Amino acid sequence: MRKFINPSPDIWAELVKRPTKNLEELEPGILQTFQLVQEQGDAALLQLAQKYDGVQLQSLLASEVEIAEAEAKVPQELKEAILQAYSNIQLFHTQQAEPVRQVETMNGVNCWRKSVAIDKVGLYIPGGTAPLFSTLLMLGVPARIAGCREIILCTPPAKDGSIHPAILYTASLLGITHIVKAGGAQAVAAMAFGTESVPAVYKIFGPGNQYVTVAKQLVSKTGVAIDLPAGPSEVLVMADESANPAFVAADLLSQAEHGDDSQVVLLTTSEEILQQVEQELEVQLNVLPRREFAAKALENSLGVVLNSRQSMLNFSNLYAPEHLILSVADFEELMEGITNTGSVFLGHYSPESAGDYASGTNHTLPTNGYARAYSGVSLDSFVKKITFQYITREGLQNIGKTIETMAEAEGLEAHKNAVSIRLKELDRV
Amino acid sequence: MRKFINPSPDIWAELVKRPTKNLEELEPGILQTFQLVQEQGDAALLQLAQKYDGVQLQSLLASEVEIAEAEAKVPQELKEAILQAYSNIQLFHTQQAEPVRQVETMNGVNCWRKSVAIDKVGLYIPGGTAPLFSTLLMLGVPARIAGCREIILCTPPAKDGSIHPAILYTASLLGITHIVKAGGAQAVAAMAFGTESVPAVYKIFGPGNQYVTVAKQLVSKTGVAIDLPAGPSEVLVMADESANPAFVAADLLSQAEHGDDSQVVLLTTSEEILQQVEQELEVQLNVLPRREFAAKALENSLGVVLNSRQSMLNFSNLYAPEHLILSVADFEELMEGITNTGSVFLGHYSPESAGDYASGTNHTLPTNGYARAYSGVSLDSFVKKITFQYITREGLQNIGKTIETMAEAEGLEAHKNAVSIRLKELDRV
Repeated sequence: MRKFINPSPDIWAELVKRPTKNLEELEPGILQTFQLVQEQGDAALLQLAQKYDGVQLQSLLASEVEIAEAEAKVPQELKEAILQAYSNIQLFHTQQAEPVRQVETMNGVNCWRKSVAIDKVGLYIPGGTAPLFSTLLMLGVPARIAGCREIILCTPPAKDGSIHPAILYTASLLGITHIVKAGGAQAVAAMAFGTESVPAVYKIFGPGNQYVTVAKQLVSKTGVAIDLPAGPSEVLVMADESANPAFVAADLLSQAEHGDDSQVVLLTTSEEILQQVEQELEVQLNVLPRREFAAKALENSLGVVLNSRQSMLNFSNLYAPEHLILSVADFEELMEGITNTGSVFLGHYSPESAGDYASGTNHTLPTNGYARAYSGVSLDSFVKKITFQYITREGLQNIGKTIETMAEAEGLEAHKNAVSIRLKELDRV
Repeated sequence: MRKFINPSPDIWAELVKRPTKNLEELEPGILQTFQLVQEQGDAALLQLAQKYDGVQLQSLLASEVEIAEAEAKVPQELKEAILQAYSNIQLFHTQQAEPVRQVETMNGVNCWRKSVAIDKVGLYIPGGTAPLFSTLLMLGVPARIAGCREIILCTPPAKDGSIHPAILYTASLLGITHIVKAGGAQAVAAMAFGTESVPAVYKIFGPGNQYVTVAKQLVSKTGVAIDLPAGPSEVLVMADESANPAFVAADLLSQAEHGDDSQVVLLTTSEEILQQVEQELEVQLNVLPRREFAAKALENSLGVVLNSRQSMLNFSNLYAPEHLILSVADFEELMEGITNTGSVFLGHYSPESAGDYASGTNHTLPTNGYARAYSGVSLDSFVKKITFQYITREGLQNIGKTIETMAEAEGLEAHKNAVSIRLKELDRV
């Protein structure tokens, strides 16, 4: 942990910087993959599964039999946990639905907006060490609430051609029928451009390795929307004298275990707490299965002692962390001053893990300082908000002059005429 | 107008395609501009104003005197129109504010989200033939409602160093104090990276020429958010037998006059209406000041006769127009089937101009088919929605097992431990 005791605000901008990674060198290879998928469709996906996943697939899509078998393989305890998380996420995200509110801005001028599902969405769930069924819940539940008509799931197959049972079980709960065994840039290409088996979608969600990250960036230039720009996961913990060092250390490690590029920041008003947290980190780290990742991440982490709660708040708002934990006695006032973050965890019994899995909030959040301008994934991410207006004859008579005057001042006569021609007709009646 | 009578749905995908423009060749020059602004700040902006706008500026910022003088120059009638539009836009966008709703997903597990303003935003208003004070209203009003602390306006100066009085007057109404005389890629760079006079912002809004478009794309790769991907403006009109051909022609022309790349589409169930609209287009076109633009745009426009209302709806949803006008007798049922568009105008007396200027809805909308996945600018565009959770001791005891089980199944022991360590302590108490 890099430690700073009351660093001058002059160097804060330096401290909050994230390491930058230039991934441009990956672009040519990924564009080649795109071309292959565009030209050969399913055949390209099968070929690339052999090349990158080491498997000769019989079929790109998971079969009903596979899905049914998966259900039998998932332990009852895990099923119950997934169902509980599903229920909480559903409850929280359902509340995000915006009712249609009609506003009559002038007599006869009626305006409203309506949320309409994005028709076709693609969800990417990485393979690798951890089967991220939690991410599938975080993306699939709001997609279902929104009413997306087609939900495509892409996830890389294991060497035996299988998909982790917990992923298949969760997909099945969500009613996802298009489960495609494809990973990496080729999966992103399939969802962006379509193949015989994979319908082209309008928006692509989900985390992934650097190939997936760059592929998402590249397809977003062709008009396919993406959920969020990517970056390593982050947590910032503010701890005062009331904090429990063991809890704080556990929270920092839960972020650090994601990968060696995870960003972990501790702000505290107490040097003693900083020391105690460091001792706890050592104790807890040693028994972790993923201690190698965590230890690497901790090397780059920050421990900063600041002389006031306000300073902690200012530093945190400048950093704009993905996750922000307030391990403080009375968080109410501090909470009001938060401007830049993805998701906030209040008090000593709200660990980040709760939001990562089951409390109901979404865990797909802005990293890398993007929280200054971006929100995390929510129901909003799966809908468009379309505005409507209905103007009556009287309404147009009320507002017409205003439009004509403005259009004329902007030199747009045809805009003016679209009103004038109607007003003239109304005058004649 | 390119005309099609009942084209087979097989060729619809071809018909809805927009012309693509490759702007990558502009990137090297724009990156040079970025470098200049990053290295020399204000001096670069002054130098580039001389080069591109042909003016030696005394100061980059509009002065209080200039703003006061502008107010005197704007005709009373225009002031009243701007104030009326301001009031309507304010009314409609205020209704978009989301109240904080606390959801207790399980006993003791409390989640909510809160809208927090993006601290610093930049608005770009192009110069050129039309002083787009209407766009300034569309961006500035929601920025004000959101509570953005710093609102920076960049707009290119005229050859005499002035800014159009209507722009200055509108900016002053909005309480914008940072009015920067800068245009093009250099203005985008100034807002993205900051200079002595221009604070760096977190999100950049507004239309512009191709240099501005590419500059916005490029800064978005560096972490600065942008409002929407750009493309030429569009309208699609659906007209049935009840439509007034003169009104329809006026609406098509109001889009066509924007520029020669404007996209104009007429769908109708009546060949007669198509013929009549074409006749009206000729009549109305001849008297337009911007008839050259409009005539060019009309050459590429589409007139499509379809044999049912449902076919019109299907075609329109595939096209995903920025603006959609339903010039039909009974729009209620048709309205329900709309999935992809930015903003809808219902019936014979709701011209697009109303939404462009004054009805209250926003006119910054997704073009180029982006309406399949993107919404137009709204109050949402100026806030982040931050999630919060407060879990009580009892809450953690209720949800703890679920989190532990899921974390373990994903192989993330430290995530599990952040809960276990707290539950153990609670057991001890």
